[in-house]
Amino acid sequence: MNWIKSPCPQHDNSIKERAAERQTQLTKPLGSLGELEHIAIRIADIQQTNTPSAENIAITIFAADHGVVDEGVSAFPQEVTAQMVMNFLQGGAAISILAKQLDAKLEVVDVGILTALPQQTGLIIQRAGSGTANSAKQAAMTEEQLKSALQVGYDVIERSIEDGAELFIGGEMGIGNTTSAAALYCALLGLTPEQATGAGTGLDDKGIRHKISIIKQILETHQACGDDTLEWLRCVGGFEIAALTGAYIRAAQCGLPVIVDGFISTAAALCAILIQPKVNDVLFFSHISAEQGHRSVMEILQQKPLLDLGMRLGEGSGAAIAANILRSACLLHTQMATFAEAAVATKTDK
Amino acid sequence: MNWIKSPCPQHDNSIKERAAERQTQLTKPLGSLGELEHIAIRIADIQQTNTPSAENIAITIFAADHGVVDEGVSAFPQEVTAQMVMNFLQGGAAISILAKQLDAKLEVVDVGILTALPQQTGLIIQRAGSGTANSAKQAAMTEEQLKSALQVGYDVIERSIEDGAELFIGGEMGIGNTTSAAALYCALLGLTPEQATGAGTGLDDKGIRHKISIIKQILETHQACGDDTLEWLRCVGGFEIAALTGAYIRAAQCGLPVIVDGFISTAAALCAILIQPKVNDVLFFSHISAEQGHRSVMEILQQKPLLDLGMRLGEGSGAAIAANILRSACLLHTQMATFAEAAVATKTDK
Repeated sequence: MNWIKSPCPQHDNSIKERAAERQTQLTKPLGSLGELEHIAIRIADIQQTNTPSAENIAITIFAADHGVVDEGVSAFPQEVTAQMVMNFLQGGAAISILAKQLDAKLEVVDVGILTALPQQTGLIIQRAGSGTANSAKQAAMTEEQLKSALQVGYDVIERSIEDGAELFIGGEMGIGNTTSAAALYCALLGLTPEQATGAGTGLDDKGIRHKISIIKQILETHQACGDDTLEWLRCVGGFEIAALTGAYIRAAQCGLPVIVDGFISTAAALCAILIQPKVNDVLFFSHISAEQGHRSVMEILQQKPLLDLGMRLGEGSGAAIAANILRSACLLHTQMATFAEAAVATKTDK
Repeated sequence: MNWIKSPCPQHDNSIKERAAERQTQLTKPLGSLGELEHIAIRIADIQQTNTPSAENIAITIFAADHGVVDEGVSAFPQEVTAQMVMNFLQGGAAISILAKQLDAKLEVVDVGILTALPQQTGLIIQRAGSGTANSAKQAAMTEEQLKSALQVGYDVIERSIEDGAELFIGGEMGIGNTTSAAALYCALLGLTPEQATGAGTGLDDKGIRHKISIIKQILETHQACGDDTLEWLRCVGGFEIAALTGAYIRAAQCGLPVIVDGFISTAAALCAILIQPKVNDVLFFSHISAEQGHRSVMEILQQKPLLDLGMRLGEGSGAAIAANILRSACLLHTQMATFAEAAVATKTDK
């Protein structure tokens, strides 16, 4: 597991400055493309080229089950994790449609759903266990399992880069995982369980109150974790959040831009940033999730996500919606004519 | 010009209700696609089909010059209007790149740039005049010119529908047109010139103060327009805003969804809505422009645009960025599996 501390690449600002300079030469009033200009410059810097590109997109969904579901924290039954994995593979889920729209490769990894599915096209089986243990009573993972789950993320990024990916989107599926993510926000950012706990897939008010009490129990059970990010990740889970954490860290080490999805993925991004702050440099936050607490988390992380459309589905769906914005930013940066090329007059002094 | 008062189609809520019902059956927690669900239902209602689609997109840029530029209200010289039209046609402008990304047809209409350009592929020449008159001193258009400019929008929509367009984006190019749009916001919504006046293509503070004084002069010159929307449009201009107004009205009459771009396009949308309130039903507001005043206008119109990315370019560029969101919404609505189809368990009572 030593790789997670391997440094991210260090480079000077020369490409970034050239990209910023190019933005001033394109046929538009200075700054008029707003965030799209910053996105293009950031991707140029991450990819270390003044012809940034987000055409080749790799999407991986990490699926796993959560022992804490035994405590009655989810509105949907646990078998939905495996059923939704089948739906991803058969092309009927939201992320299936969005991946097709983006012409992106969609891969699903079983990091540890309760019962393994048969081998099939599009499914990578790399299980860290058969669901995590119930974090309200014991550590969700052993140290070996945490290591395995992080490694899944590493392997996904290595594969994506081999396939020529220019942009990575990680998604997740795991009934019960808003409980894990909320517990991580409380443990790592100091949010209260009330601030961090929402309806997930659709709890009513009574269900949310119960979920808050379980999150309090999780936090008490593992208070010895202190300020150790990896220990919290191990004790709270889940496998898919750990795999995403590993993927984000490895993407940063490889200079691969990442779009972070919503409530669950941001918890993995938080873990990754706490383990290695420079991971933040490759992350684009796609949207503010409608799940309670995500807006506060974005404010604490001083992030202004690209979209605020009331989405709260997960699966990487918000990141997929935002991907076209990154694509547009790169295309505009590389393909727009300059004032000189187009023989357009520049600003006069007024 | 009687056509602008022709009624928009009236239909019952049966399609809308069926679309809303379908959203509850798709394999996702109820409401978890947020705005995307509302977008799909709205497009289903506008197109009167439960298989809404935004694949075939027509983009038209209306270009025209403004006599008020004589007053020194723009940071860029007037010849830039024609130069940018050439840039659109040669594929080097932001909207050229975005149209290509969307695989959308891009058409440019000369509604009245100062000096007519030669006939060429992609350019429709349908001039209401050689630039408007200086609205700080006289009416920008004659009644005949207003009628011609509105007709340009009508014709564009008729052509788009003939070509099978499922979604319309209107853009504009016209040095000086933030002055016209700002004056319209003051006249029609009661904003003060200070609230409605921004830097446009890049004025400094002194330039903005001067522009405010010119807008005050415009409002005084034409105060006799009272609450007559069409008279304000005629007196303030410009040709491209009138053409967009005509296009929005005709699109609504034909049940064609529209994405409104930014500061200038919204002024046309405002005129269209004031002339016929039901036009509002087909409009999707793409983004909050960074141009001073647009946020206030969106609040007054009680609109929450899809994007807030600090854009202020015009040309239809913000609408083009938002178009993929509408496309995604339609694809998700029509292609996602239902719980029954995918054999995914539904919510339990918790």
